[in-house]
Amino acid sequence: AGALTTTYTASQGLLLMIPNMYKMAGEFLPAVIHVSARTVASHALSIFGDHSDVYACRQTGFAMLCSTNPQEAMDFAAAAHLSAIEGSLPFLHFFDGFRTSHEVQKIEAWDYADLDELLDRRALGEFRRRSLNPEHPVQRGSAQNSDIFFQAREASNLRYDGIVDVFEGVLRRINAKIGSDYGLFNYYGAPDADKLIIAMGSVCDTIEETLDALNAAGEKVGLLKVRLYRPFSIRHLLAAIPSTTQKITVLDRTKEPGSPGEPLFLDVVTALRDSAFESVPVYAGRYGLASKDTTPAQIAAVVRNMQTDAPKKRFTIGINDDVTFLSLEVTDIGDTTPFGTRSCKFWGMGADGTVGANKNSIKIIGDNTPLYAQGYFSYDSKKSGGVTVSHLRFGDHRIKSSYLVSKADFVACHHASYLDKYDIVEDVVPGGVFLLNCAWGPEELNRRLPARIKRHIAKNHIRMYTIDATGIAAEVGLKRHVNTILQSAFFRLAEIIPVEMAVQLMKDAATESYGKKGDKVVAINHAGIERGVDGVQAVTVSAEWATAVDAASLPIVTSARPELAKFVDEIMRPVNAQRGDSLPVSAFIGLENGTLPMGSAAFERRGIALETPQWLPENCIQCNFCAYICPHAAIRPAALSDDDLAKAPAQTLSKPMAGMPGHHYVIAVSTLDCTGCGSCVNICPGLKGKNSLRMEPMESQLPAQEVFDYARALPVKTEVLERFKLSTVKGTQFRTP
Amino acid sequence: AGALTTTYTASQGLLLMIPNMYKMAGEFLPAVIHVSARTVASHALSIFGDHSDVYACRQTGFAMLCSTNPQEAMDFAAAAHLSAIEGSLPFLHFFDGFRTSHEVQKIEAWDYADLDELLDRRALGEFRRRSLNPEHPVQRGSAQNSDIFFQAREASNLRYDGIVDVFEGVLRRINAKIGSDYGLFNYYGAPDADKLIIAMGSVCDTIEETLDALNAAGEKVGLLKVRLYRPFSIRHLLAAIPSTTQKITVLDRTKEPGSPGEPLFLDVVTALRDSAFESVPVYAGRYGLASKDTTPAQIAAVVRNMQTDAPKKRFTIGINDDVTFLSLEVTDIGDTTPFGTRSCKFWGMGADGTVGANKNSIKIIGDNTPLYAQGYFSYDSKKSGGVTVSHLRFGDHRIKSSYLVSKADFVACHHASYLDKYDIVEDVVPGGVFLLNCAWGPEELNRRLPARIKRHIAKNHIRMYTIDATGIAAEVGLKRHVNTILQSAFFRLAEIIPVEMAVQLMKDAATESYGKKGDKVVAINHAGIERGVDGVQAVTVSAEWATAVDAASLPIVTSARPELAKFVDEIMRPVNAQRGDSLPVSAFIGLENGTLPMGSAAFERRGIALETPQWLPENCIQCNFCAYICPHAAIRPAALSDDDLAKAPAQTLSKPMAGMPGHHYVIAVSTLDCTGCGSCVNICPGLKGKNSLRMEPMESQLPAQEVFDYARALPVKTEVLERFKLSTVKGTQFRTP
Repeated sequence: AGALTTTYTASQGLLLMIPNMYKMAGEFLPAVIHVSARTVASHALSIFGDHSDVYACRQTGFAMLCSTNPQEAMDFAAAAHLSAIEGSLPFLHFFDGFRTSHEVQKIEAWDYADLDELLDRRALGEFRRRSLNPEHPVQRGSAQNSDIFFQAREASNLRYDGIVDVFEGVLRRINAKIGSDYGLFNYYGAPDADKLIIAMGSVCDTIEETLDALNAAGEKVGLLKVRLYRPFSIRHLLAAIPSTTQKITVLDRTKEPGSPGEPLFLDVVTALRDSAFESVPVYAGRYGLASKDTTPAQIAAVVRNMQTDAPKKRFTIGINDDVTFLSLEVTDIGDTTPFGTRSCKFWGMGADGTVGANKNSIKIIGDNTPLYAQGYFSYDSKKSGGVTVSHLRFGDHRIKSSYLVSKADFVACHHASYLDKYDIVEDVVPGGVFLLNCAWGPEELNRRLPARIKRHIAKNHIRMYTIDATGIAAEVGLKRHVNTILQSAFFRLAEIIPVEMAVQLMKDAATESYGKKGDKVVAINHAGIERGVDGVQAVTVSAEWATAVDAASLPIVTSARPELAKFVDEIMRPVNAQRGDSLPVSAFIGLENGTLPMGSAAFERRGIALETPQWLPENCIQCNFCAYICPHAAIRPAALSDDDLAKAPAQTLSKPMAGMPGHHYVIAVSTLDCTGCGSCVNICPGLKGKNSLRMEPMESQLPAQEVFDYARALPVKTEVLERFKLSTVKGTQFRTP
Repeated sequence: AGALTTTYTASQGLLLMIPNMYKMAGEFLPAVIHVSARTVASHALSIFGDHSDVYACRQTGFAMLCSTNPQEAMDFAAAAHLSAIEGSLPFLHFFDGFRTSHEVQKIEAWDYADLDELLDRRALGEFRRRSLNPEHPVQRGSAQNSDIFFQAREASNLRYDGIVDVFEGVLRRINAKIGSDYGLFNYYGAPDADKLIIAMGSVCDTIEETLDALNAAGEKVGLLKVRLYRPFSIRHLLAAIPSTTQKITVLDRTKEPGSPGEPLFLDVVTALRDSAFESVPVYAGRYGLASKDTTPAQIAAVVRNMQTDAPKKRFTIGINDDVTFLSLEVTDIGDTTPFGTRSCKFWGMGADGTVGANKNSIKIIGDNTPLYAQGYFSYDSKKSGGVTVSHLRFGDHRIKSSYLVSKADFVACHHASYLDKYDIVEDVVPGGVFLLNCAWGPEELNRRLPARIKRHIAKNHIRMYTIDATGIAAEVGLKRHVNTILQSAFFRLAEIIPVEMAVQLMKDAATESYGKKGDKVVAINHAGIERGVDGVQAVTVSAEWATAVDAASLPIVTSARPELAKFVDEIMRPVNAQRGDSLPVSAFIGLENGTLPMGSAAFERRGIALETPQWLPENCIQCNFCAYICPHAAIRPAALSDDDLAKAPAQTLSKPMAGMPGHHYVIAVSTLDCTGCGSCVNICPGLKGKNSLRMEPMESQLPAQEVFDYARALPVKTEVLERFKLSTVKGTQFRTP
């Protein structure tokens, strides 16, 4: 109807639009689909980023445009809409899911007045005149037979030839306006490069950063960034390749099993035919599937592959392929960020406010200083209660590091319990700062800190600090909101900007945010900010730490079922310890089709609840509602015989089982599986209004875990199942376990 | 759940499965999707055949297998299922929509016992053991994060490497069983070919036929047929190319706008890299979109293109591209079918029984003689009442002509009215037979036959016959079923098999079909069969025919709206005359996006009804139900003023308009737009049970057309619209026109 339309989608949602995309392109509709490119589910679903979804649309007739980073996503969004309207063809504008879509960066923003200036109003008017309108009706979407379809389809050739010029013209006008140098392809690197990488998407920034380092060390390497992927202009591609090029590697962020090569590689090989580069060797690399981090060291490996006598023609990077041996060997190449770039890393818990506080810190620094700032936040899939790692960088130069922070100048661990589970302090650069949020004094710290961490701190001269953010928050009246306190501790220790300036800006922001809630709320927040600065305690590292030895640890329980034990030990535990990246391909042989053994949750006791339910038998009416409602099956009824009860752990509580003489009724709680949601307490009808469940601090309820494990291991009592198949409680039919 | 599943789909229906196909491949599920490959709708929908739909699935991880013809579709259906089970990967088995899916061919059929012998029951058992079963539960379809997805995805490499061997093994066993020589790629042609065509699908048979002719004339050309398209085995491809090859052309049956080349071309170019054929020029041709017929002459043009000094690197065949000049020039190369192949062509009308009778003829000949037989039936999209053209071939050798019959030894026109509209007799080879179904005696024939046809018959020594099948059918009691009569006339005149044998086989079939209905019905059918043989009248071609001149024809009315006139004259009329294939690309400039002007139906008066309604004003209650029910708006009420009525054609009938003094009510019938469905007659309540509409022979109602055209051209009378916006007829609210 003449409306300009746009949408944002990704992955399967995009793929379901494929038939419609052929129609949109065939009918020359100037729509734009913005895509944060994400993995298409195969053996497993993944919400993360790669190009498998956009590649699946390459045959639809859409023009396709790729952005490298948030700034380009801004600029090319404009370019896509302007070109779609002017050239009357739909555009798919894509950028890397998560790495670009979820990165926080300091960018130059467009406003509508700028867009207005560049808009081709004549073309817009023409599009509107072409609309389906009862005032001047036309027919579209009809059928054509074998006699004329082919001719009519070929009649669109001029449109596709023209769109390249239209897009180039739009880029020229954008470049003139904002001072950029965007082209259909952009070259970066040594003007006389002998080795060339061709790629698109966020990896290009990492490649640029890596090439800066390599070329500074005497290499001659270049990067050709693909912006307009469809139509794929062979002429423009060839014009952008340095004539000195001797070897080319094409990187593709997808895997198309059974294909003779990934899509961009196929296009490049075809483009080089009959050109001056016809006999230049071309290698093909697969990288970054499902947001696999692509680092400068991997890019250096790609370059090194071009230098060897026997390069791998088809390879992968970022993984260790010990099965089909396609992966390149990667060796550390050190820090490639520009001098003065400071990196920080924060270990938080889903919904604890760490990510929000970090976004706020970036905004403060970005808005109030000339510094560039970047934030990227990696999550596991456990949402609330899962691990969040915030990766922040600050510096005087534009930050092109589109990969995770591995070694950081400042690392904060916001949950002391993480120290046992994850490698955290190992990420601090020698001489860097490590902040731990805990209530431990020096003595307790010394007792609690694992020897591995002590040794690392001592040997690497890491400056360690603690802060009792939880205690401070309670004291000043912030209740359990510790993020402001930890944020000002960060400003004090990381020294990105003067701490006084940071404190003032944080206070100003708090005044603006909470002003309406009254002076008292503002004052509490200001107090938290000040105490975050003052509350930081430097930890004295004793000489003994360098040789600390761990106490013997408890044996790790695993399954008696071999296939489950293999999965738990070889995959689940490394993954839960945030070490999944180090698993080789061979770890998944036998699980290639996405099959997982059942029962692994029993070996992943997260213990994340602050409070868990305690059973009060005297108030229990044995209705089983608590077990029914528990979303994690962490609370279950059990029927114990006299003999069972006699052998049960001493702390086992029970009451005679209603309707089942000779049996003892037990509500067993798996304290370490409980997430503390409280549903059981809420649903419990209780005896005469007295609740039979009460939330208590998790640590106090750990003895209940033993009762749960004992009860769960008892053989099934079929007579109880028979008897209680359907019992009626207050008119509600309810199936007992 | 361990069930082996298969489905059949095409085009958009297939494309909507794309996300699921990634999952099926990722989970190694041995399903098979059989696809009669069809066009994906773009500027226009087309139900016809090309490879655009299957190419849209090439990235999903499915193995993909292509059949050339009905025999291969049978054999490769088996190969696909057997390989899917043995190799545990899903297969997409495709063959050309319409050309293969709807072709009638004499083939060797498999039975279940043969399949059973080749089935890998161990693999089947393994698949069933892997099923999701509560007795041995596993988890599938879970999520993986950036840490492990990539490694797990690469773990499938061995599976894809293995499927090639599995498929090759299955082919080996099939070859041993049925004596075929199927490979992943099959070569055909000169052993020392200097020119090679690479293609897949039904075009391969046409190419083989063409190469036989060209190579017999001294050329050295070869064909490489792609069977296993995914995984695309570079090793097998290279092994199948003759070492003498100097030039290669890849044919792709799709158009992917904006791509640097169509899919098979990209694959081949990449496969040739680093091979002995690295520097062999490769040309790319697009053909056969939406069932565009691909003929030996076009294939010869492809070969000729490889011989010229300046070959077109990217080209189209089958159309005249006078806009972007991609098309190759095609020149007639004569008949390439093997000696003794007889071709026949039948012009019928949708639902008149012609297609059914022809299928029956093929069955009779195929089942009872060693002759090979082929039938292909082309339809326009008008279904009942549209044109059907049956293309039949018979011969001693396997019939590889996967293209339409252009010149036929025998042509039958089952509807005399077609002679004015279509080029029919022009398809008869010099000296061939032309049969016309008509009731005309020699004199009337001489009067009715267009001069163009007379001249063609005389100059080409065509033996013309007539038969009054309609008259014979009525006489013997077959009512309007003329197809049996025309079928025996075909057997008599075409002389494919001895007419006595054909008559006996037709009679046997009729006895079997109609035996249960009693001897009388059988006798009637036998009589029709005999009379079809005897009723054929040889037409004496007078010497004057060679110089016959047409009487001046009526001027063709067209629209006063220029854009409509252009469409009607330049596209619609050629298309309706079955000459759409000859339209060049330039005819569609301005209509590239599928837009059509409104109102063209008024210029396509088909006149296909045998009977149309006559209005009887004396019985009309002016309820307008007839206009309401007519699906073609061919019957409409009109309100005429005194003045209007005075100027109306003399034959105009009217009656005073109820509730609208000074107006005359007319029911106008567009006789030439009516399809004769009789809905108006059925719905008419009439006055006191007397119907106000009666079906009469169409020709007798032609004067009503003039009344309709007059009434339709009158200006809208708003006062009538206002008054009759809602009138209540027998309790039913009804909006008048």
